[in-house]
Amino acid sequence: MARNLTQKLIDAHLIEGKKIAGEEIGLRMDQTLAQDATGTMVMLAFEAMGIGRVRTELSAQYVGHNLLQTDYRNADDHLFLRSACRKFGVWYSRPGNGVSHPVHMQRFGVPGKTLVGSDSHTPAAGGLGMLSFGAGGLEVATAMAGNPLYINVPKVMGVRLVGQLPDWVSAKDVILEMLRRHGVDGGRGKIIEYFGPGLANLTAMDRHVIANMGTELGATSTVFPSDGAVREFLRSQGRGDAWQEILADPGADYDETDEIDLSALEPLIALPSSPGNVVPVRDVAGRPIYQAYIGSPANPGLRDFAVPALMVDGRQVPDHISFDVNPTSRQLIENMIEMGLMEFLIKTGARFHQAGCNGCIGMGQAPATGKISLRTVPRNFPGRSGTVEDQVYLCSPETATASALTGIITDPRTLDIPYPRFAHPASLKINTALLIPPEAKEKSIELEKGPNIKPMPVFGDLPDRIEGPVLLKVEDNVSTDEIMPAGAAVLPLRSNIPEISRYVFSRIDDSYYERAMAYRDKGSFVVGGSNYGQGSSREHAALAPRYLGLRAVIAKSFARIHAQNLVNYGILPLVFEDPEDWSDIHQDDVLRFDRLRSVLSSIRHLEVHNLNRDRTYRLVHHLSRRQLQMVVSGGLINVIRNNH
Amino acid sequence: MARNLTQKLIDAHLIEGKKIAGEEIGLRMDQTLAQDATGTMVMLAFEAMGIGRVRTELSAQYVGHNLLQTDYRNADDHLFLRSACRKFGVWYSRPGNGVSHPVHMQRFGVPGKTLVGSDSHTPAAGGLGMLSFGAGGLEVATAMAGNPLYINVPKVMGVRLVGQLPDWVSAKDVILEMLRRHGVDGGRGKIIEYFGPGLANLTAMDRHVIANMGTELGATSTVFPSDGAVREFLRSQGRGDAWQEILADPGADYDETDEIDLSALEPLIALPSSPGNVVPVRDVAGRPIYQAYIGSPANPGLRDFAVPALMVDGRQVPDHISFDVNPTSRQLIENMIEMGLMEFLIKTGARFHQAGCNGCIGMGQAPATGKISLRTVPRNFPGRSGTVEDQVYLCSPETATASALTGIITDPRTLDIPYPRFAHPASLKINTALLIPPEAKEKSIELEKGPNIKPMPVFGDLPDRIEGPVLLKVEDNVSTDEIMPAGAAVLPLRSNIPEISRYVFSRIDDSYYERAMAYRDKGSFVVGGSNYGQGSSREHAALAPRYLGLRAVIAKSFARIHAQNLVNYGILPLVFEDPEDWSDIHQDDVLRFDRLRSVLSSIRHLEVHNLNRDRTYRLVHHLSRRQLQMVVSGGLINVIRNNH
Repeated sequence: MARNLTQKLIDAHLIEGKKIAGEEIGLRMDQTLAQDATGTMVMLAFEAMGIGRVRTELSAQYVGHNLLQTDYRNADDHLFLRSACRKFGVWYSRPGNGVSHPVHMQRFGVPGKTLVGSDSHTPAAGGLGMLSFGAGGLEVATAMAGNPLYINVPKVMGVRLVGQLPDWVSAKDVILEMLRRHGVDGGRGKIIEYFGPGLANLTAMDRHVIANMGTELGATSTVFPSDGAVREFLRSQGRGDAWQEILADPGADYDETDEIDLSALEPLIALPSSPGNVVPVRDVAGRPIYQAYIGSPANPGLRDFAVPALMVDGRQVPDHISFDVNPTSRQLIENMIEMGLMEFLIKTGARFHQAGCNGCIGMGQAPATGKISLRTVPRNFPGRSGTVEDQVYLCSPETATASALTGIITDPRTLDIPYPRFAHPASLKINTALLIPPEAKEKSIELEKGPNIKPMPVFGDLPDRIEGPVLLKVEDNVSTDEIMPAGAAVLPLRSNIPEISRYVFSRIDDSYYERAMAYRDKGSFVVGGSNYGQGSSREHAALAPRYLGLRAVIAKSFARIHAQNLVNYGILPLVFEDPEDWSDIHQDDVLRFDRLRSVLSSIRHLEVHNLNRDRTYRLVHHLSRRQLQMVVSGGLINVIRNNH
Repeated sequence: MARNLTQKLIDAHLIEGKKIAGEEIGLRMDQTLAQDATGTMVMLAFEAMGIGRVRTELSAQYVGHNLLQTDYRNADDHLFLRSACRKFGVWYSRPGNGVSHPVHMQRFGVPGKTLVGSDSHTPAAGGLGMLSFGAGGLEVATAMAGNPLYINVPKVMGVRLVGQLPDWVSAKDVILEMLRRHGVDGGRGKIIEYFGPGLANLTAMDRHVIANMGTELGATSTVFPSDGAVREFLRSQGRGDAWQEILADPGADYDETDEIDLSALEPLIALPSSPGNVVPVRDVAGRPIYQAYIGSPANPGLRDFAVPALMVDGRQVPDHISFDVNPTSRQLIENMIEMGLMEFLIKTGARFHQAGCNGCIGMGQAPATGKISLRTVPRNFPGRSGTVEDQVYLCSPETATASALTGIITDPRTLDIPYPRFAHPASLKINTALLIPPEAKEKSIELEKGPNIKPMPVFGDLPDRIEGPVLLKVEDNVSTDEIMPAGAAVLPLRSNIPEISRYVFSRIDDSYYERAMAYRDKGSFVVGGSNYGQGSSREHAALAPRYLGLRAVIAKSFARIHAQNLVNYGILPLVFEDPEDWSDIHQDDVLRFDRLRSVLSSIRHLEVHNLNRDRTYRLVHHLSRRQLQMVVSGGLINVIRNNH
């Protein structure tokens, strides 16, 4: 039978379960990655498991998020991560080396391998023919311990690319077109597989851009074939040996298909405050901007900085525009200098920041009140920039740079300058000095835990009867950024659950913490709309609410990673059988579950009683036996502890 | 009569008073500068004065402090400052253009001119033969309005330099030697004037280093002659025309003198947590470090980055060291790239930050808990780095870089590498695109005030009788960093007095705010040791305590700028006649002043009664008639308002 690429990659790593749509399967993970904002919990969990050394082919820890260091906490985290890497056998990418996804692809990416990372944009590695997943830190720790990653067998959406991108239109516009067509939950339960003749004109880094933001479609992952473009990329990184060809079989089928004619695309832009609000740039051209922002793993390649540099050469950004350049890696900076490109950016008035995630995750560069910021980053959820009522638009480097030069939103095709044809060099300057290999074997290395690094909280198992209030009711598409904000005030608390819990839902209702604490022992609930928990993979959006007593989220539907994170920390993700019931529940209604443990152990359906309305709602869960065990035990750590 | 340089500069600008030691005189100010952390208040005060356009030869506003932008407030401030510059006729140096002091020297410095800046390190311009002062923002606004700056006639300390610096010893070691000899209040009431044959071997930027940190000696200012080295500097900046020779007369006298043999100096280092704790580097060599930090106006020159770059070329910083490079200006970055120097720093593993003050003022790059950070910055007051119990050492770029390479505090002479001989280019790449000239005349420009920019509070005049508690009693050398912290949490509040007041004295006693608020209307007191209010010129260290009801500080002695700031905001700076009385007063003692207004108007001595101890202390004030009027009126703004 002709297999598509996704099926081939799954088959090569399937170690538990059967490939039946919707069923849970276990996949062997060849590699793991963690970034620092989630990585401290990964390391604390791995430590708690008592495994000693990682059992993957390769595990890597990056430091790209918490770089501002406004007090001791970030720096303490870096030292902790370094000591954990040495102890556990993990590569350590130092602060300043760059953003996890592009660096991992450059230094460690291998076509055909699997990867799980504690970052929702991990599927960017799909640009290299890898099968890669974002997950909560606990699952990454579990994979580091040699265990499989469990997912529900996804559908495969085949997207056929034809034609060739016109001048001024680039990979970012391809994924924005996907978002325009399919919205932020169009990829839920699916792996998106790109194929077709249009691929010939997309480099591996172009594909990284598209795969990275597949996460914004809600997709489980994105894959591209490993073809000549991948070989060229690996050669340019001095790793041609890592290449092997991996293609879909001719005539392979897909569960659904779509087709994009690249030649017909035009510059697109996502309006505030969702990556799904996509319109042509020309529809909003002329709006005055405050900021243009280049960087992030959604546009991390050399060409994504080179094209802006060539565009601004000899031109000046107006004096009221903040033109922020965020290099994605040290390698990028070195090559930009070598090629004479960095100078152009500095001359035009760019603010050149250290290599890292920076403003993409709200760590600095927040825009002014009510002013428009154009960014090449993957997300524009409300407030993620650091400014509460922000106006962040997502676009390509070409559109951001054209707008920086004019001071208004500008379709780059209307700039009266020649399109800069950037020829990617066949080989790059490679410098791995900030990427520290693991110790050959465990020495007696002490973990360095600063005062902000607190132990993982211990949770009890699931009671048979829970009665508690609905502390919050929210609409559709609530993101993990709203459940557990990032940004400069909150990110330094990622290793300190009691403290970070103060920020749970603070962007939506800043009384949540106080109210939740009052019911912490009895238990409480949240009611959500559809696609609840989209966005970032941060497990803190489950762990911190659980710390505050959250026992179940009842929603119309869940984003994949977040649902698993809830389960990992012993919170029930339950779905309304009749979505209309959502309207019937109000904040502060008291709900009661009876005989919960026995019901859960036998059937998929259960009931919850609303004491205020005297109504009963029918709910359903989609948990595997493995997941059920977790929830009942009070979370994955308890399961591992009990089995130990 | 043979005049020294200081006398000549004073004579050329004296417009009020007589040049009698200790008497108050008024000096014409040719230029003003402000940085952003103090500049928003400067502009609000200037707006309140209703003058319209500045009446100086040149005024400039820099944005170098609040660059992190973790929320909307910094960005809003930038837009406000830009609008104020356009409206009031001030040069605007955009975010990313660099730190005020070196940029001002490069673009606007003119030998023989006077300058007042709302930053305590403004005397750095003395490196160019200018007479320059740090002051509170209100005084800068007053100078912008064309009024004189009032100072007490200083003594002049002549420091004769002989010999030539050995390899591995640089300008920073000269000022550290001064601090080793004279301590942090050795310069109080003095202008320090350097002369002698040793000058021939110090460039204008070397002199900038020495003049900058004259502030750490408590000096009113520092001056160097305008000689061939200054001419060379101005030529390299394309401004040779601005040069004129200004030298002390042969045989000029000084109130006191000192002599430094440059040939005999060795690498020095200031231990935590005072710039005055200076020892030879070799005394502390071998201590393990966490961080080496290059940058700040205390080492802003091309050579201060070039020498480190040449030192690390081909070498690698150990993987546990954070090597942070903070360029002082965009010009510096361009020239570093042009000369191939930036590449060396990136290769060695440096984290390269945007041009600005950054970690020097606690805006990022805070060290890990309890770990040593070596910095080329001017100050290491407790917690100024952002880490509460920090271990910051001050040293030269050579010492910081040598230690970065070894991972331990290292006397650079013991590194087994040749001393890099850096030849400063005769001309530099000049790029002024981020320095925006003022509008030719006032247009109808609206000030852009974001929601964080609050009006200046209005204060009442001085009551005749004040009874209130001593809210705090502190030891010697308390700095304005301890009275009103800077750092990432506090600096964004500089335009919002009610909010920033919550941080007053928070590093010393975090109950101060609550206790002060309880006595806000009645009034309260602080008791200080000697050199109270050293360090930064921030007027918020007076304005915010005044907002909380502080009516007088009774101390053994005051730092000059802070004493004036107290007066500017209607707080009495009073000195114990018998310093022993300091020991008799305790926190929470209730003090009472009677017939205050009438006493102040007639004599320099007054009494305060301690109700708890039933003791009376004799106090003295050193206020001029002008200053008295300010205190009695409730501050300078009230004086201006009353006269308007």
